[in-house]
Amino acid sequence: MRAKIGILTVSDRAYRGIYEDLGGPAIEAYMLEALTNDWEPVPMIVPDELDRIKSALVQMVDDAGCSLVVTTGGTGPARRDITPDATEAVCEKMMPGFGELMRQVSLQYVPTAILSRQTAGVRGRALIVNLPGKPSAIRDCLDAVMPAIPYCVDLIEGACLTTDESKIRAFRPKSK
Amino acid sequence: MRAKIGILTVSDRAYRGIYEDLGGPAIEAYMLEALTNDWEPVPMIVPDELDRIKSALVQMVDDAGCSLVVTTGGTGPARRDITPDATEAVCEKMMPGFGELMRQVSLQYVPTAILSRQTAGVRGRALIVNLPGKPSAIRDCLDAVMPAIPYCVDLIEGACLTTDESKIRAFRPKSK
Amino acid sequence: MRAKIGILTVSDRAYRGIYEDLGGPAIEAYMLEALTNDWEPVPMIVPDELDRIKSALVQMVDDAGCSLVVTTGGTGPARRDITPDATEAVCEKMMPGFGELMRQVSLQYVPTAILSRQTAGVRGRALIVNLPGKPSAIRDCLDAVMPAIPYCVDLIEGACLTTDESKIRAFRPKSK
Repeated sequence: MRAKIGILTVSDRAYRGIYEDLGGPAIEAYMLEALTNDWEPVPMIVPDELDRIKSALVQMVDDAGCSLVVTTGGTGPARRDITPDATEAVCEKMMPGFGELMRQVSLQYVPTAILSRQTAGVRGRALIVNLPGKPSAIRDCLDAVMPAIPYCVDLIEGACLTTDESKIRAFRPKSK
Repeated sequence: MRAKIGILTVSDRAYRGIYEDLGGPAIEAYMLEALTNDWEPVPMIVPDELDRIKSALVQMVDDAGCSLVVTTGGTGPARRDITPDATEAVCEKMMPGFGELMRQVSLQYVPTAILSRQTAGVRGRALIVNLPGKPSAIRDCLDAVMPAIPYCVDLIEGACLTTDESKIRAFRPKSK
Repeated sequence: MRAKIGILTVSDRAYRGIYEDLGGPAIEAYMLEALTNDWEPVPMIVPDELDRIKSALVQMVDDAGCSLVVTTGGTGPARRDITPDATEAVCEKMMPGFGELMRQVSLQYVPTAILSRQTAGVRGRALIVNLPGKPSAIRDCLDAVMPAIPYCVDLIEGACLTTDESKIRAFRPKSK
């Protein structure tokens, strides 16, 4: 089974082409380095609109069959930042530990890390994880949570993800 | 007043007897070591069903008069893991600090600690705390949160819990 | 533009005059030391009643035009402690990073820090932040979150807050 990974860029400016999408390619580059299983990206760019983000997430999970969806952008406090809200609206279960750890890691670099509302949740057989918009912050956040993602996707009966151990040591407990 | 402490094992396999319940006895053993006040356990085992968990929690708090209810199991991301959701459904107030601290402590041992959705909340005069299913993780989590539990139960007008200071130093601020 | 900062004391006893309000003045003293921009306090004292807290917050944000509202008191687990619930009820967006960091900082002093349910959120062009009731804890919490507040208020299009860098180094990232 070939894993599908949704990469959703949420940005008014990237959507309109005013601004080059840097977040989506940064996530794809990271996954290319980290994953050793067969996989394909399912990329999309949407504006910061609740309904557009929600339907992109639903399409990636329910139609495309993604086991993992990673979003970039729209996690701050500004009026148009609503990616976490869209994520919560489509998920059956929220996973607060992801946001907690990512904020904690980002706090080592900037005190404004607490302004990120990024979260994660489960919809069907997919894990959805919010990342910030900035490529360097994307890498820091993925380094922190990636070791737990393959086992999480196992537990929700998604595709089997394997990693290059020299980059990311995916952890799978011996027994449940 | 004799304190009552609910010990709720949430597990399809333990409920059907396929699997020995290790979580419930681990919690009881911990409390026997830690507490010095007069108390009695109110143990129950339920399957991973939302309504069964909710009614067990309500029964322990409203009918049995427990001041503290500790659950074990059902805190992960899998389809049948719904203990935190049942907890939230019966609580009037959520206490996010418990889950945050327990995940932080578990992260020292395994990167998959972020997959735990465990939380805590207050229903009437009872504090409900979710613990993981694994006995060693139960001990680590209780070591982290137990020092704050007696004062919390004081504040919600539950029974007076006292601890063996050589094991757990319960903290009660001098003045509010 | 003169910034307005709401300072809301939530306390049955302070409201009835049984108890001197120490939290409100502690917040005002802190802001006088930390802020260098032109600002004025909008102080209020309400009892621990959901509707009273909600309407005070709405009045401070919608009518008085506060860019920042800081509350003190009512963040614990007790029956009358409902400040975070009132905050959540009036906010469009919650900011979980504030509560996480404040609890983490308070945990360095007391294990009962996990009992605080304090949170933060955004309503319109205002950031609302819950602080504990105790003056020393107010200072510890503000020291932790204040560096991120001016940039947050920028992002939600509130007033421009500037700080005395010898006390609080407000952080504003170079580019979004």
